[in-house]
Amino acid sequence: MKINHHHYRSIWLQDATSGLVQIFDQCRFPHEIEIMNLRTMEDCARAIRDMHVRGAPLIGATAAWGMYFAVREAPDGDGLEAHVRQAAEYLNATRPTAVDLSRALQLMLRELDKVEGRENKIAQTRQTAQFIADESAEQCRMIGEHGLPLLEAISAAKGGQPVNILTHCNAGWLACVDYGTATAPIYAAFDKGIPVHVWVDETRPLNQGARLTAFELLQHGVPHTVITDNAGGHLMQHGMVDLVITGTDRTTRCGDVANKIGTYLKALAAKDNAVPFYVALPSSTIDWNMRDGVAEIPIEERSATEVQYIQGWKNGELIQVLLTPPGSPAANYGFDVTPARLVTGLITERGVCKATEEGLTGLFPEFT
Amino acid sequence: MKINHHHYRSIWLQDATSGLVQIFDQCRFPHEIEIMNLRTMEDCARAIRDMHVRGAPLIGATAAWGMYFAVREAPDGDGLEAHVRQAAEYLNATRPTAVDLSRALQLMLRELDKVEGRENKIAQTRQTAQFIADESAEQCRMIGEHGLPLLEAISAAKGGQPVNILTHCNAGWLACVDYGTATAPIYAAFDKGIPVHVWVDETRPLNQGARLTAFELLQHGVPHTVITDNAGGHLMQHGMVDLVITGTDRTTRCGDVANKIGTYLKALAAKDNAVPFYVALPSSTIDWNMRDGVAEIPIEERSATEVQYIQGWKNGELIQVLLTPPGSPAANYGFDVTPARLVTGLITERGVCKATEEGLTGLFPEFT
Repeated sequence: MKINHHHYRSIWLQDATSGLVQIFDQCRFPHEIEIMNLRTMEDCARAIRDMHVRGAPLIGATAAWGMYFAVREAPDGDGLEAHVRQAAEYLNATRPTAVDLSRALQLMLRELDKVEGRENKIAQTRQTAQFIADESAEQCRMIGEHGLPLLEAISAAKGGQPVNILTHCNAGWLACVDYGTATAPIYAAFDKGIPVHVWVDETRPLNQGARLTAFELLQHGVPHTVITDNAGGHLMQHGMVDLVITGTDRTTRCGDVANKIGTYLKALAAKDNAVPFYVALPSSTIDWNMRDGVAEIPIEERSATEVQYIQGWKNGELIQVLLTPPGSPAANYGFDVTPARLVTGLITERGVCKATEEGLTGLFPEFT
Repeated sequence: MKINHHHYRSIWLQDATSGLVQIFDQCRFPHEIEIMNLRTMEDCARAIRDMHVRGAPLIGATAAWGMYFAVREAPDGDGLEAHVRQAAEYLNATRPTAVDLSRALQLMLRELDKVEGRENKIAQTRQTAQFIADESAEQCRMIGEHGLPLLEAISAAKGGQPVNILTHCNAGWLACVDYGTATAPIYAAFDKGIPVHVWVDETRPLNQGARLTAFELLQHGVPHTVITDNAGGHLMQHGMVDLVITGTDRTTRCGDVANKIGTYLKALAAKDNAVPFYVALPSSTIDWNMRDGVAEIPIEERSATEVQYIQGWKNGELIQVLLTPPGSPAANYGFDVTPARLVTGLITERGVCKATEEGLTGLFPEFT
């Protein structure tokens, strides 16, 4: 996607000879656009841990490049394999809940075993890391293709008036490698000339909506308005939302979705106002072993300081300020689960389906 | 209620001889506890306009004291009445949507007309302003009395385990004169020794929950936890909320309630999880001429900068920081309407009733 009119991905191999991967430092968005160099496995681990990159697919891609560096850094000969396996464990511990992270690491280890010799292994990890990034981008592009007709239909029904889409958190290209998941159909529609307008939930506590989704849309020229997380229900009551699209961090085989905390509240409001509520996902987020999301999906509890403090921009500096009385405790649940009964449909790389076991296995019969 | 173990109201006449009314500067809560002097009508108007005081009942009381100063400042003789009527119009324009404001001003003007002579009019406005404050405090105390049995019943059913109450925004004593509306039953239960714990929605954009409700509860010693506005649905899904109590800025005769934006989302989550959802209100918030809240109650749209920026505390200073990309527009709806079908009951100064016309006119037969 675009930043300052140039096309970028969220991560790329800049120089294979010296070993240089580049990312945008997402901690500083939207106030500073800073490209960050990753030159070692440790750089990649730190980028994930300190959230310079975030979003499950991008975390996976960054870990994959971390494995590429691990092979380059490994001692020649017998020590190589132990070194690389240790690196995989180390990378896996950076954000233990992101499912794409362990999936990417497993794929890297598997591909690594297929070839012999240091140089071949370096080439193999480079190709595999690139494959993981390319696959993610392609899946997101296909989500855009499959979601596009939903927006086209609403646009046609509204006689070309802007389609108002509400989204929560950042399920955009900055969370992925390119296109995004929830944003992919929006970009596809916009690029096709369909008038769209996006309501961007700021998404407290870390404000991924206000910081990242708004930034993405602004850079791409997509009309949008930032709102508090409290506002969506009112907008839906007054016919100001035509469609909700969010991402998901984990999807059960029955169609329950765990996404950023607050998604469930928007799904309830959508249901109460007959607004279609879609969830966009690459199939890698589907946990085929789970059925009941509310009962089974573990919800990460994060640091209270993310609620008590907030970071913003003042006089050319990022500043953290205290919001609550010192002495008042805070709780910080990272995700909530939206039951499938509130989800109108799932937009995947293979097409759109109902949020049911039949719907999902219809598109992915290999998991029947 | 208490600050630093002393009992306070949110506004009080400190000195009738020199003419001194005092308030807490609520802009600086919770980071600084600063008593602010009001010595003129203009001081009162500025305190309301710049939100040093907020909350419908407290705005009404502050405007009443403003009228007291207006009479003191009026020229003797024929000019007095014109001066005072002008002051009433001026005060009424400070926050045009707060219903208690115009009600207090009308009462002040009516009482003023009952007596003749400057000194008598000063005494009359002093007594009436004090009456308005006392009446508000008494209504809130009665809301506490009537709401208490709801909490006692839950406590008994839980075998004395803490009653978990979720509240949104600040419908506490800082919004009123004393006790608060939504908080009155909580304080009543706490003071009676019933274990309670309050989930405090931070309530973006102005964070009245994180700043004011948390501060109030902390000062009174009531166990509480600040959460983002996104969190309540997850808590309710997992049985961590026994009861929701909020305030209301306007209530229709059929029981719809307009309250701080985001209240509707919590009401939907409460309904979906069979959690009782109560609204506490003095009868002055009831608009007996309205039936359909979503269609009829006008929703104030406030400045986008309240969404784009946030104020917090750093190094002993209140600092405002930017949250969104410069260039991203924001929208800021102040209230939403919760339809009566989502409200379990209304807690008023005359008792608890169903959120229906029959329920309300049962308690207030004079409006049948």
